[in-house]
Amino acid sequence: MPAQASSSFSAARAPRVAIVGATGAVGEEFLRVLDQRSFPMTSLKLLASARSAGKTLSFGDQTLTVEALGEHSFDDVDLALFSAGGSISREYAPLAVKAGAVVVDNSSAFRMTDGVPLVVPEVNPQAVTEAGIGLRKELKAGIIANPNCSTIIMLLAVNPLHRFAGVERIVVSTYQAASGAGAAAMRELEQQTREALSAPGGTGTVETQDVFGMQYAFNLFSHNSPVEMGGYNQEELKMVHESHKIWNQDADQGAAVSPERIRTGITATCVRVPVMRAHAESINLTFRDECSELKASELLRAAPGVTLQDDRAANAFPTPLQASHQDDVFVGRVRRDLSQPEGRGLDLFVCGDQIRKGAALNAVQIAELLLERRGAER
Amino acid sequence: MPAQASSSFSAARAPRVAIVGATGAVGEEFLRVLDQRSFPMTSLKLLASARSAGKTLSFGDQTLTVEALGEHSFDDVDLALFSAGGSISREYAPLAVKAGAVVVDNSSAFRMTDGVPLVVPEVNPQAVTEAGIGLRKELKAGIIANPNCSTIIMLLAVNPLHRFAGVERIVVSTYQAASGAGAAAMRELEQQTREALSAPGGTGTVETQDVFGMQYAFNLFSHNSPVEMGGYNQEELKMVHESHKIWNQDADQGAAVSPERIRTGITATCVRVPVMRAHAESINLTFRDECSELKASELLRAAPGVTLQDDRAANAFPTPLQASHQDDVFVGRVRRDLSQPEGRGLDLFVCGDQIRKGAALNAVQIAELLLERRGAER
Repeated sequence: MPAQASSSFSAARAPRVAIVGATGAVGEEFLRVLDQRSFPMTSLKLLASARSAGKTLSFGDQTLTVEALGEHSFDDVDLALFSAGGSISREYAPLAVKAGAVVVDNSSAFRMTDGVPLVVPEVNPQAVTEAGIGLRKELKAGIIANPNCSTIIMLLAVNPLHRFAGVERIVVSTYQAASGAGAAAMRELEQQTREALSAPGGTGTVETQDVFGMQYAFNLFSHNSPVEMGGYNQEELKMVHESHKIWNQDADQGAAVSPERIRTGITATCVRVPVMRAHAESINLTFRDECSELKASELLRAAPGVTLQDDRAANAFPTPLQASHQDDVFVGRVRRDLSQPEGRGLDLFVCGDQIRKGAALNAVQIAELLLERRGAER
Repeated sequence: MPAQASSSFSAARAPRVAIVGATGAVGEEFLRVLDQRSFPMTSLKLLASARSAGKTLSFGDQTLTVEALGEHSFDDVDLALFSAGGSISREYAPLAVKAGAVVVDNSSAFRMTDGVPLVVPEVNPQAVTEAGIGLRKELKAGIIANPNCSTIIMLLAVNPLHRFAGVERIVVSTYQAASGAGAAAMRELEQQTREALSAPGGTGTVETQDVFGMQYAFNLFSHNSPVEMGGYNQEELKMVHESHKIWNQDADQGAAVSPERIRTGITATCVRVPVMRAHAESINLTFRDECSELKASELLRAAPGVTLQDDRAANAFPTPLQASHQDDVFVGRVRRDLSQPEGRGLDLFVCGDQIRKGAALNAVQIAELLLERRGAER
């Protein structure tokens, strides 16, 4: 297919874009984000399973028809945004790269693969530009991975402080929304809650337990990902290992992300709570160098992608509902940790939209970095 | 009132009991717990505000009528269980003591008062026996305080490990149920959820915001207690200061509770989640001496008041729904903290019924210790 292979993302025209998993919660958010940001595109192709083919979705004032994902779906695509789960990414992302596209992959399939940049644009943007376009020579190097939602949201808040004072240790506990398990989980939370409310006191028996196999309505539970040796579940390990990779991307890409090059110790406890689409995180930090509450607030107020929401008098702090459908990660409860020497420890409470900054928006921001890089090369 | 004053809890007959705040969530649980444990009583008097007087409540197969709380309510009472908020306790607990009763107070009014024991029976039972009956000579010393629910639930899980290896530091994040704010908050969560579900996707506008002044349904928020200087809210400070008092009761009572006499550093982040009546806590521990995952599990399996629920293969860990209406605190996710040297750090996830072990049961257990003490004195 020489005609397709020569049509590359590095050409001067606006890219031809495909969304893989267009009918999912993240897929539909991709459409909103691309439209709202006026992402430059020559064409937009929506791909999903054969079951969803023929379905129509709105994009701005257009109506687009979903096509079935297939081997040749990427022949006329420069940029493919994947969000259809790990197995679809493992099968089709290499085909997309072979056809000449750059892939931004929202699954965990390639995140920890050597040579695949793992990028939060506010944290390690240079990893994209280093990966750039030329790296598509190798199969996997045409893929840029979007980190786990909990990792992205945590790093937006922690990175500005890490760059200032060096974070030696993070203890994080999450409060994760249904959306992280997809649209079906959101519908199940809604349906279960209706069933629970059918009895007085909201404590009725819940029959619908298809997604998690237990009651989610008015309940919470340790994250449903499999538990590995050592007792951490996969979600928790993603937060640990992805953060290390993002902060140490310099090892892969030759750019010093964290000037201190501290190996941050991280422990995470991931919990699913009955909230629809934004995650919250309680984050405890230990610093190598001094970082006062005041300095941290100043850094967070200036940080890109962050809104400081920290009104003690009004008891007004971030909530997942307020963070829903917002681009920024909201940070509050910034306070000195009483259990550590003054200046060496802080607590934070953070909320961010799981579907938006935790997935679709971050991936589109990565694509915008690719466009900038292309502009710089011309 | 010499007749009343001579009628004391230390007499050989079963005590005459009063419940103050009998119509509240904790008050009604007092009735269930006293009945289920066949707590020995000569009489049982239900007290509440004048508004609730005349209301009837079931106790076993009896129907009891609620009386209005007044100055002379305690003239024929040996044991008064208070759960009607701090201002009622501050006004009436001293009157009850003056009338010859021992008060077990569920409010925060006297918890940090010198000379008032603050007791979790599984942790510092000797504080009750030291306080005993004779201490009623002084006004306040006839009061025994029931700790904050989050403190009780945390200490049930942490104390067995503290006694073994000395806990130097605790980082705790809570997931707190509606019940901690009373029956009205539980009703509001139910009502708000109905309103939210009236729109598709469960995202309708919520009109009823009487208790918290914000949307609670499908949301969560930093604990609603006032934020103090330093940025901690009162709930968080209770967890810090009450834990210290309970573990250092020896300073007040001459009994070494914590053999290590470590001043444990504690930081807490308290969050309200849309769950009805059991709290969850994500707890991170740092040990002075070595405490392996295996040893911790062994200690927790043997600990009174604790059920170890830690099935990694089945991803079956404590949930607030399963912990509801249970006496025990459920502990799981016991695992080595990857961010600390092996043997020096562990993570736990804990659930306990806020109304039961967090309030009514713990108070009745304190009363049972008083009865034992009386038995030993005869």
